[in-house]
Amino acid sequence: MVVSLRLPSLSALFSPAISRRPSSLLRCNHHRVRRPVCSASFSAQSTVSETNGRVDTQTQSSNRVVDRAVTPRSEDFNAWYLDVIEQAELADYGPVRGTMVIRPYGYAIWEAIQDYLNVKFKETGHSNMYFPQFIPYSFIEKEASHVEGFSPELAVVTIGGGKELEEKLVVRPTSETIVNHMFTQWIHSYRIFPLWLTKWEMRTKPFVRTLEFLWQEGHTAHATPEEAEKEAIQMIDVYTKFAYEQTAIPVIAGRKSKVETFAGAVRTYTIEAMMGDRKALQAGTSHNLGQNFSRAFQTQFTDESGQRQHVWQTSWAVSTRFVGGIIMTHGDDTGLMLPPKIAPIQVVITPIWKKDDDREGVLNAASSVKEALQTAGIRVKLDDSDQRTPGWKFNFWEMKGVPVRIEIGPRDVSSQTVVICRRDVPGKQGKVFGISMEPSILEAHIKDKLDEIQSSLLEKAKSFRDCNIVDVSSYDELKVAISQGKWARGPWSASDEDELKVKEETGATIRCFPFEQPQDIKTCLMTGVLAPHFLFSHIHIDTGISYVISGVDTTNYYASLSFYITKTGSLITDSFPVKQLWRRST
Amino acid sequence: MVVSLRLPSLSALFSPAISRRPSSLLRCNHHRVRRPVCSASFSAQSTVSETNGRVDTQTQSSNRVVDRAVTPRSEDFNAWYLDVIEQAELADYGPVRGTMVIRPYGYAIWEAIQDYLNVKFKETGHSNMYFPQFIPYSFIEKEASHVEGFSPELAVVTIGGGKELEEKLVVRPTSETIVNHMFTQWIHSYRIFPLWLTKWEMRTKPFVRTLEFLWQEGHTAHATPEEAEKEAIQMIDVYTKFAYEQTAIPVIAGRKSKVETFAGAVRTYTIEAMMGDRKALQAGTSHNLGQNFSRAFQTQFTDESGQRQHVWQTSWAVSTRFVGGIIMTHGDDTGLMLPPKIAPIQVVITPIWKKDDDREGVLNAASSVKEALQTAGIRVKLDDSDQRTPGWKFNFWEMKGVPVRIEIGPRDVSSQTVVICRRDVPGKQGKVFGISMEPSILEAHIKDKLDEIQSSLLEKAKSFRDCNIVDVSSYDELKVAISQGKWARGPWSASDEDELKVKEETGATIRCFPFEQPQDIKTCLMTGVLAPHFLFSHIHIDTGISYVISGVDTTNYYASLSFYITKTGSLITDSFPVKQLWRRST
Repeated sequence: MVVSLRLPSLSALFSPAISRRPSSLLRCNHHRVRRPVCSASFSAQSTVSETNGRVDTQTQSSNRVVDRAVTPRSEDFNAWYLDVIEQAELADYGPVRGTMVIRPYGYAIWEAIQDYLNVKFKETGHSNMYFPQFIPYSFIEKEASHVEGFSPELAVVTIGGGKELEEKLVVRPTSETIVNHMFTQWIHSYRIFPLWLTKWEMRTKPFVRTLEFLWQEGHTAHATPEEAEKEAIQMIDVYTKFAYEQTAIPVIAGRKSKVETFAGAVRTYTIEAMMGDRKALQAGTSHNLGQNFSRAFQTQFTDESGQRQHVWQTSWAVSTRFVGGIIMTHGDDTGLMLPPKIAPIQVVITPIWKKDDDREGVLNAASSVKEALQTAGIRVKLDDSDQRTPGWKFNFWEMKGVPVRIEIGPRDVSSQTVVICRRDVPGKQGKVFGISMEPSILEAHIKDKLDEIQSSLLEKAKSFRDCNIVDVSSYDELKVAISQGKWARGPWSASDEDELKVKEETGATIRCFPFEQPQDIKTCLMTGVLAPHFLFSHIHIDTGISYVISGVDTTNYYASLSFYITKTGSLITDSFPVKQLWRRST
Repeated sequence: MVVSLRLPSLSALFSPAISRRPSSLLRCNHHRVRRPVCSASFSAQSTVSETNGRVDTQTQSSNRVVDRAVTPRSEDFNAWYLDVIEQAELADYGPVRGTMVIRPYGYAIWEAIQDYLNVKFKETGHSNMYFPQFIPYSFIEKEASHVEGFSPELAVVTIGGGKELEEKLVVRPTSETIVNHMFTQWIHSYRIFPLWLTKWEMRTKPFVRTLEFLWQEGHTAHATPEEAEKEAIQMIDVYTKFAYEQTAIPVIAGRKSKVETFAGAVRTYTIEAMMGDRKALQAGTSHNLGQNFSRAFQTQFTDESGQRQHVWQTSWAVSTRFVGGIIMTHGDDTGLMLPPKIAPIQVVITPIWKKDDDREGVLNAASSVKEALQTAGIRVKLDDSDQRTPGWKFNFWEMKGVPVRIEIGPRDVSSQTVVICRRDVPGKQGKVFGISMEPSILEAHIKDKLDEIQSSLLEKAKSFRDCNIVDVSSYDELKVAISQGKWARGPWSASDEDELKVKEETGATIRCFPFEQPQDIKTCLMTGVLAPHFLFSHIHIDTGISYVISGVDTTNYYASLSFYITKTGSLITDSFPVKQLWRRST
């Protein structure tokens, strides 16, 4: 994927004024001063402008100061997150509370996610479609648990074309209902299965978490429960692979507890990611819907023996929340840090000159290097702007999380070499000097470097994650782990009530029952009961099915062994990044 | 772009029952019987099923008859259009009146449009963004002519999360208002210009024409009116090139009359296409918005001399209506006919065998041919289904508009050759026998064939268009042309009132003032006034500016010379294809 953004103009455009301490902003651009930015800066109006050393004191003037500093992550993770979103120019407030505008740089990351997944979906046989945004209000009421789950989230259109509508319309929050409505018209025979659809669109979720976000949604219908289960697992695997290989996020894949299962689903699979503050992000889900919707909508087919049967369905989704996950997994006090595979710009070239005589030579060399790398399929940006100093540019592109910077100065031109700097390794340690400009050598070097960074980010995130998961064998140990802000992993076969009690008392929720289970025998940390199925890593899934489908309380035990549990910060686990902006703006 | 659809299963899925004359459906699949389909077939419920010769009389049974016949185009263009949409499986009704579901094959055409334009937009420096779907109701009221133009089209959300909202929200019909709201926050200096954005999303237009459709929308802001004008022209040029080169639609590009100008725009440029029934389709528009929105929203910047100025803006869009344009330009009584460059499947391979002994050899050869073409970058589909006869497959893929069919039978396997058939040239005339299977030869032949078809479709459409445009020099001649269903072209410098009178008396509207103007001097067909600026093919644009901006009636004459005028069938010029479906369903 090649994304070409006209970043110089856009970056200038999207840089809001930072004005809490006007006097402190008159810093020299050549020095990389970083200081905390107050969270109130978002709505600041007064300005002090500065252009390339020239100070312009006119209020609301033409060129605003861009202070690239962010709140240190260790000091206030949420403030840091907001600062990065603002200063790396990823998103901005919309005019309606709880909405956001995704700015070009943020949108380019979403496009990279789309590009990868679109290919994977098509490879696995799925087709894109479009379903209308408006559905009759009555649709929501057809599936009982679904209406319960979604009614607090509905945006209802009551006026159309200036007139009160006879039947209210809903800006649909999710597509199970309309998909089933169409399936009843399309599905007649077992011959059509499996039926695979995907969609890319806006999803509304008004007044809970965020008003709307972008997402991808897949829906499938199958003739047998086995096929549906296989599909749900296949798609969570696609998401897992995407998380590891493209975004360098070491998610933990598993099944949700009944309490956390999607409204209307039989089983929900999830990928759970640990953010930089050790909070959990549900980064993607895949649902086995069983026959819940097909029974509600009478989506039937005639099987091989001529019997009418309800179809078995799945749905699965990821959203722009993934962008939030990338920020919160890899970002640091210098700003965003993008894994090379997902970075809209993988390499930025910063030419450096002091004397005007050197300018042309340096720029020519920088252009040749750019051409060479572009030809090699690397997403490269040459920042040849005259209006900013090299120091300002270093800060700016580090804030944007560009994985590799190439510096070219007059001496480099003489020696026909460049300096290469890694975004993820600060200072001299991350620099390599004297790499030849010769296209094939440079290209190979850069490609290696990008691979190295990609692996290194994943390894770093993995070891951070593993250091922050505590194995517990009693409720007391669990409470300690949670109070330390860590995740707890332990054997569990207790009831929904116990699960809710843990949530009530510690704020922690079961994130998932991981697919990867330990081999040793353990007793449930709450009940002390020896879990009978512990040797079968997936047996809890089958038990889960019968439990949720039947709805019978006597089977009210999970036969699975381990779970991840964490103090969910509602601020962080919500979608990128609206609620936080929202909270801040009120 | 490579689109991989699992068409066999989908096609079976999406084939609705045709059941008006059940007895007549028991036809032999080997013969290509085409007969008119009643327009009521869409909602038909009773079914008679047939599978590969086996008749299954069970109602609502497993496998429905696919009758690939459509209403002859010459008999009833609208019924033909609907039949093609249904039987080529492009779209279906949504549950809310006026909405549609775009099915995988239709969506793949839209994806092809997106893929091409996305590249062109990025090449010309534009970036994609996302703007929230909901805007405060008050936004719509800020720009006077805009609110007038859009208020009949609004979907208003009054209930959110179960509660009456304090401020109503609008599912925004278009983005000028929110874009300006954001611009006021982002734009400070002249340094940021030009500012280029594009978006791909759903657009709502409730209760006028269609409830919603998909579209692409571009917005730009500039420091000078000249730049804005240049941008508006550049983008209509991009659309024109797209129409000619990709979709083989010979559009006529020009300026809209004031009466037809977009609500809130200073000038609207358009590409107008002639459909198969000689009605006009406005296939894309580009607006010079002047300062109308920046004045309403106070979108200002500080210019080089330190003065505050309102920005100059443009916006431009194409929508899924383009898919309707492709159908109605090239389709025939056999169904859809897709220009190769936009076709999701460019080549379909149909293996033919009678004896079981031949099956394996034929299928192996067909697979090899498929591999070879796929490797060469051709979008190819092998229809190796056992359940359908070759005759059925011929019909099916012709209905889907696949440009080239390759037939491979046992004799072809012996001689290592194939038969190649053009979709656009029926019968033996479109067939070439004995083309070698050798990959390089076959690939070259197919590529030539695809180019040939692409050019041929454009030429055919061009000559159809030119045969149906009449040069007129008086109102009487105009009336005759219009009454014959043709387009009229003639000199025009009359008033808005005259324009509305023509519409009133003939049903015709000014489609555009074409950029390409004749060289000879003419007098206005309505007023007899010698149009003074006729030698300057673009002078009408400048006059248009001052006219519309000033709003002064004394300049109430177009100084341009020629225009296209046609009887606009509201059925046809509306978006693909909802209103027609709608009309039919009521």
